[in-house]
Amino acid sequence: MKTASVCTIGDEILIGQIVDTNSSHIARELNRLGIQVQYMSSIGDSREKIISELGRCLDQTDIVLVTGGLGPTKDDITKDALRELSGSSAYRESAEQLAIIRRILGERGIPMIESNKAQALVPDSCTVLPNNLGTAPGMAFYGLGSSGKSVLYSLPGVPFEALGLLPAVMDDIRRHFSLETITHHTVLTFGIPESTLAERISAWEDALPSNVHLAYLPNPTLGVRLRLTQFGGQADFEPLLAPLRELLGEAIYGEGDDTLQSVIGRKLRAAGKTLSLAESCTGGHLSELITSVAGCSDYYKGSVTSYANEVKMKILGVKAETLAQHGAVSEQCVREMAAGVLRALDTDYSVATSGIAGPGGGTPQKPVGTAWLAAAKRLDDGSVTVATQCIHSASSRAVNIERFAANALDLLRRNL
Amino acid sequence: MKTASVCTIGDEILIGQIVDTNSSHIARELNRLGIQVQYMSSIGDSREKIISELGRCLDQTDIVLVTGGLGPTKDDITKDALRELSGSSAYRESAEQLAIIRRILGERGIPMIESNKAQALVPDSCTVLPNNLGTAPGMAFYGLGSSGKSVLYSLPGVPFEALGLLPAVMDDIRRHFSLETITHHTVLTFGIPESTLAERISAWEDALPSNVHLAYLPNPTLGVRLRLTQFGGQADFEPLLAPLRELLGEAIYGEGDDTLQSVIGRKLRAAGKTLSLAESCTGGHLSELITSVAGCSDYYKGSVTSYANEVKMKILGVKAETLAQHGAVSEQCVREMAAGVLRALDTDYSVATSGIAGPGGGTPQKPVGTAWLAAAKRLDDGSVTVATQCIHSASSRAVNIERFAANALDLLRRNL
Repeated sequence: MKTASVCTIGDEILIGQIVDTNSSHIARELNRLGIQVQYMSSIGDSREKIISELGRCLDQTDIVLVTGGLGPTKDDITKDALRELSGSSAYRESAEQLAIIRRILGERGIPMIESNKAQALVPDSCTVLPNNLGTAPGMAFYGLGSSGKSVLYSLPGVPFEALGLLPAVMDDIRRHFSLETITHHTVLTFGIPESTLAERISAWEDALPSNVHLAYLPNPTLGVRLRLTQFGGQADFEPLLAPLRELLGEAIYGEGDDTLQSVIGRKLRAAGKTLSLAESCTGGHLSELITSVAGCSDYYKGSVTSYANEVKMKILGVKAETLAQHGAVSEQCVREMAAGVLRALDTDYSVATSGIAGPGGGTPQKPVGTAWLAAAKRLDDGSVTVATQCIHSASSRAVNIERFAANALDLLRRNL
Repeated sequence: MKTASVCTIGDEILIGQIVDTNSSHIARELNRLGIQVQYMSSIGDSREKIISELGRCLDQTDIVLVTGGLGPTKDDITKDALRELSGSSAYRESAEQLAIIRRILGERGIPMIESNKAQALVPDSCTVLPNNLGTAPGMAFYGLGSSGKSVLYSLPGVPFEALGLLPAVMDDIRRHFSLETITHHTVLTFGIPESTLAERISAWEDALPSNVHLAYLPNPTLGVRLRLTQFGGQADFEPLLAPLRELLGEAIYGEGDDTLQSVIGRKLRAAGKTLSLAESCTGGHLSELITSVAGCSDYYKGSVTSYANEVKMKILGVKAETLAQHGAVSEQCVREMAAGVLRALDTDYSVATSGIAGPGGGTPQKPVGTAWLAAAKRLDDGSVTVATQCIHSASSRAVNIERFAANALDLLRRNL
């Protein structure tokens, strides 16, 4: 099994100003290829440290993936450390990356200056992996380390640029190493806690073939994903999946890279139906999830974030008596919000949320983390039915909002 | 200056299932004490790797902080590696931690089994830092490494338990070392690209005192943050900041932990003014940013996400002729959206966005990444003035949306 190290360069990580999320993404992709990540590290923008740390990683693992330290400013010295480490004596200009830099600056209306142009310079021993999303190119260096066979990939630190280059890096790794075939299939579930799920499918899990491994991947937004991995051979997961579907029923919402919002979008588009949202505690996050799916304008008409009660009344038609009697965080209120936005925006379906995300605003009856959710549906006779649910989440403001939104999407999905 | 390493133990990090957030918190706290974090790493649950990695860290830095690997399950072998590393021959039972374990299990109604009781066992050379939030104790080991003076702190991996023990660790570090001061000051800028900024302040940067270091921290949502770090001495950044403010003017929007939305919130609250939003291409993200600030209900009334043109017309009052003549992505449309939501939600200020986030929907005249932004303000006579801006972002859908939203907030900030 091939081994890898993942290294992040940047003082901003060492002083704790930035959380490194790149390494986790990279480790996941390497894992999918069946490569064992043995080591992750973060070091500062110091030439000496970069050379010693990357040298050590190259001696100990077959693949080293480095992110960061490639910007145009003075604190970025990674490229020169890589030049020295790879034994290059000189730089050459990558015409391909220079063209990209020119295009990007042109699109942004920024004049090209020397420091931008210098980003197209690379150590002459490297193979350029053009970065279409930013100005600093990816670079591959071969034949390094004490084995003389290790490979180093250098990627920009900006997460979307690093992630954008990952497919090219993974392709390159596939070309350079002969890897055992590994096939994955992921089944997505929502609404059953991990431990309950494990109990329910334990007999099925015990009967899996010896070359198939099951992993539980819990996530507040995605639910619990069940990832099946087959090592070697031609994979046919279908005979394993049929009994799993029996056991879990409608808790399964999708497969692979699906999300609650992509599944909802697919169903709405197929049925020619439309959706609107009325948000309070989720503050726009639900709308953001729905619009994270490209092409959502086919079925999504829009939303009202009614943070103030007067907006709930004026735009959504929530009754003053409802707010006075039951408060904004109540089943009655989300019912009226859902029905109100469905009518105001003239859609077939709608979702509403009202809760207390925290840190303040809780009461003994309605503690922080309480939310009421509603999913409304217009029937053929023009009447509206509404399904509701109350949930509790005992976490930070941001995680509470994520849980409220994901559960609201799941309520809609089950009522489509 | 004292130096530190931060090390995380756990296979779940190396396969990319979990993002390590502990290290970032720990680094921030060490930095505040004036300790230079030189190194962060993550390794798997392997006895041999733990001993070699921690041994290396102890040889190279004065302080090593380790999280993870202390649970009751079979893959947790950290404690025995620490026993060996510290030269302890035996374990002793911590009566204090055993009492905590008994209390916690009692509260959860779980009977105490051997593996729980074993969590109170510690290598006899360590000092116990009792963990009131969980079953595994924190541990301090002194006099390690090639210097014979390095200190190792071991904390549980569960983030809220690790963070709960940090104050005790920092107190212990203060007692053991006499520390040089490190002081940071971060200046936040928006609207000037990193390379242009670097050129504009390059003479100022070159004239910085030798014990002051400048770092550029670019971020699509926060703009470019300029972080000044002074090593040693009493920090007085003001003489350095005055000329920087001259050079950058209103591009500077805040300092330290400010964000565009927190600065906007502070100004609106101080002036007793209210805000509403009309989003199209940003799809709820702008509202999410505004509501990420706790207490925003003091000034934020709500938003309308008008994805469909009929919602722009019906709820926001955008004219059909405007959409027919100029399209939804136009200066005219965002003007009417901003004025419309300000009137519909009865607020003093409003922001509107309309653009093409991609990947589809672009035209030669309005390519993907084009957005029109507007910030409206109600004047004392009741009339409404609107400032507009067109921006281009050549990125992924998600990053385009982040840029549109951040630029819209910046437009509002400049027009408050």
